[in-house]
Amino acid sequence: MLAEIITIGDEILIGQIVDTNSAFISKELNKIGVQVYQLTSIQDDEAHILQALNDAEKRVDIVIVTGGLGPTKDDITKQTFCKYLEDTLVEDKAVLTHVKALYKKFTNHPLLPESLNQALVPSRATVLKNNFGSAPGMWMEKNETVFISLPGVPYEMKRLIESEVLPRIVDKFDCPFIYHRTLLTYGMGESEIVRIIHKWEDKLPKSIKLAYLPSLGRVRLRLSSKGKVKENVVRAVDKEMKVLHGLLNEIAIGYEEETAIVGRIAKLFIQKEKTLSLTESCTGGAITEQITSLAGISAFFRGSTVPYATDTKIDVLGVDEQLINEHTVVSKEVAEAMAVQSNKLFNTDYALSTTGIAGPTKGDAVDELGTVFIAIASPSGVFSEKFNFGEPRERVVAKATNKALELLLKEILKN
Amino acid sequence: MLAEIITIGDEILIGQIVDTNSAFISKELNKIGVQVYQLTSIQDDEAHILQALNDAEKRVDIVIVTGGLGPTKDDITKQTFCKYLEDTLVEDKAVLTHVKALYKKFTNHPLLPESLNQALVPSRATVLKNNFGSAPGMWMEKNETVFISLPGVPYEMKRLIESEVLPRIVDKFDCPFIYHRTLLTYGMGESEIVRIIHKWEDKLPKSIKLAYLPSLGRVRLRLSSKGKVKENVVRAVDKEMKVLHGLLNEIAIGYEEETAIVGRIAKLFIQKEKTLSLTESCTGGAITEQITSLAGISAFFRGSTVPYATDTKIDVLGVDEQLINEHTVVSKEVAEAMAVQSNKLFNTDYALSTTGIAGPTKGDAVDELGTVFIAIASPSGVFSEKFNFGEPRERVVAKATNKALELLLKEILKN
Repeated sequence: MLAEIITIGDEILIGQIVDTNSAFISKELNKIGVQVYQLTSIQDDEAHILQALNDAEKRVDIVIVTGGLGPTKDDITKQTFCKYLEDTLVEDKAVLTHVKALYKKFTNHPLLPESLNQALVPSRATVLKNNFGSAPGMWMEKNETVFISLPGVPYEMKRLIESEVLPRIVDKFDCPFIYHRTLLTYGMGESEIVRIIHKWEDKLPKSIKLAYLPSLGRVRLRLSSKGKVKENVVRAVDKEMKVLHGLLNEIAIGYEEETAIVGRIAKLFIQKEKTLSLTESCTGGAITEQITSLAGISAFFRGSTVPYATDTKIDVLGVDEQLINEHTVVSKEVAEAMAVQSNKLFNTDYALSTTGIAGPTKGDAVDELGTVFIAIASPSGVFSEKFNFGEPRERVVAKATNKALELLLKEILKN
Repeated sequence: MLAEIITIGDEILIGQIVDTNSAFISKELNKIGVQVYQLTSIQDDEAHILQALNDAEKRVDIVIVTGGLGPTKDDITKQTFCKYLEDTLVEDKAVLTHVKALYKKFTNHPLLPESLNQALVPSRATVLKNNFGSAPGMWMEKNETVFISLPGVPYEMKRLIESEVLPRIVDKFDCPFIYHRTLLTYGMGESEIVRIIHKWEDKLPKSIKLAYLPSLGRVRLRLSSKGKVKENVVRAVDKEMKVLHGLLNEIAIGYEEETAIVGRIAKLFIQKEKTLSLTESCTGGAITEQITSLAGISAFFRGSTVPYATDTKIDVLGVDEQLINEHTVVSKEVAEAMAVQSNKLFNTDYALSTTGIAGPTKGDAVDELGTVFIAIASPSGVFSEKFNFGEPRERVVAKATNKALELLLKEILKN
């Protein structure tokens, strides 16, 4: 069962927005056993859309198209589908009622002709109700291929995928089971990992695929397989993963779960009934943002400071001014003092701090560009580690954030 | 001059990562007058790569391929290019020296055969030196089409695009000038905007394209055009933009610049010699992260608190406990008190605060899910606005962040 995702919109092709819809849809399709064969992004242009639909029909069983469903002139997806499927647009009464209700709720103006266009759908399409916007989703078929058209607005698309699209695909197709499992490692490069695991890799069954995913100081190793019987697929992959984990025991930090590393940290803090605060200088709130992106964290997370200016480290956080004068603001001593003070200020068990030189210039700092100290203060004391994350600025922040979360996970696991 | 970007890697097609490379490359190509005609993401599979290269060669002048250049077995881009171009891999001495030096710097192990593979390139390829990693970029030609192969690691790819790829394209091709200008508006939906501008839109010259980009409570309106003579293109677009801005004067908040809204805020604060602090409850550091993503902000940004737990709003920030008991933590009064206290704590001129119910559940809150108060305290006093950003959680945080930055921009513009 193969699928292709086509995203329509000039804004993607000129780099004005990053296409996050395709990754979401791919992940969801994978979960129900549909393999995504290709992603394609094209312009709001009739000839190009027709060509892309035609190419996709030859390649795959399911074509999901997002975008181009707005009420304005630059949106032409619906009309183009009509041309492709030799169909005509008709007014859908249920959609019309929905559009009118939405319009009444959100504006004071009389309903406009452009908005009425939102109620037009190809006559043979099945309407997928969009509760979060005015553009309906549509399910259409031609020969053996299913075409699904969805709005490009991420939260509207997501709800439609979950509540309308996936159940219908499961219903119509007999999908195999697809299984991925990803081991997270850190501290060793791809080539070195190969050296350790190549003998095992050579003997992997053909049905299991290994991928190396290096990213910001971590290498993730993914095993993938698919088959008709879920239990067999899971057993085969888990068995090989156990061997792989054993070979890389020293650098493995766990598996990539749905919720990733912050989810594991949250779970452990709640389980152990410990509390956490953060004080982020060079990471500027990036770690806090990752933690607060999870729901339910108020059970353990009490808050953060971002003492960006040096004197706020003294005034707001209470770091000793003399310590800063003696060791500079980017130092082991200041990082550790920041963590200790954060525990005091927020009345927490654990505190994590970052201080470093994110760049692009090092200002009057003594250390090299990219130097970052990460400290953790906990019931068992305080420690810090020094890193150099190079440049540019966004890489330093991203690597420091990853590393900080890793250190925090290790620490809360230990105690 | 048309280009296609092909990203190779199973991790994209299973939704494990979001492809941000394509947006970056598209934006950079646009700047030098190359129009991106299509983006394609495919698997690490020889037949599929060959097919995609073949299709792209028919469509465009320049094909940029990212990914699949690692030293491990799952990476096959280089070999597949050789097959496509009927070439063979040969060792490049300069790359070999570079790989050896990198290896020596970052590991203690002897050089591995897998790492030596990184020095192999197609014999007719021009090597594009990658200073930030071991996989070289490659510039290849077949018939009239240029093929460029780059590593998938974003910061390696970015540097190669900037320092090696763009200058060579400008050198080889006679590119037209492409110009986009985007007006930011807020507070009105697409259909209502159409009502105001449709007469103007109908009379737009054919050479200028209008796009509506709705996103999280804002609609962006983009005018695009291209031509041989830069001055003419800019003049024609700017003239129409002036008319459009006039028509939408009440909802226009400015133009989308390279640096976006945070860049404008930073510039104004520095210009006016004012300082800023933030205190983010429901946005959990997201606003701080946007501001600290810019370099040079220590000139005006002093720091933030994220007083997530209610009692940290009292203990850390100094909000009056009785105020919270009287009005609840998600209220106009508490939002305004938070902003006022933040100015005191950080000794700043301006402070912005957020407090709200991001969800997924409303806990014991009185207000509806999605309710957010944003307050700003400044030399001219303190004010707040109440919003409902609906759900889910990530949408509430993203919309609140956008809105907070808008309010801050308006406020600093005013004073």
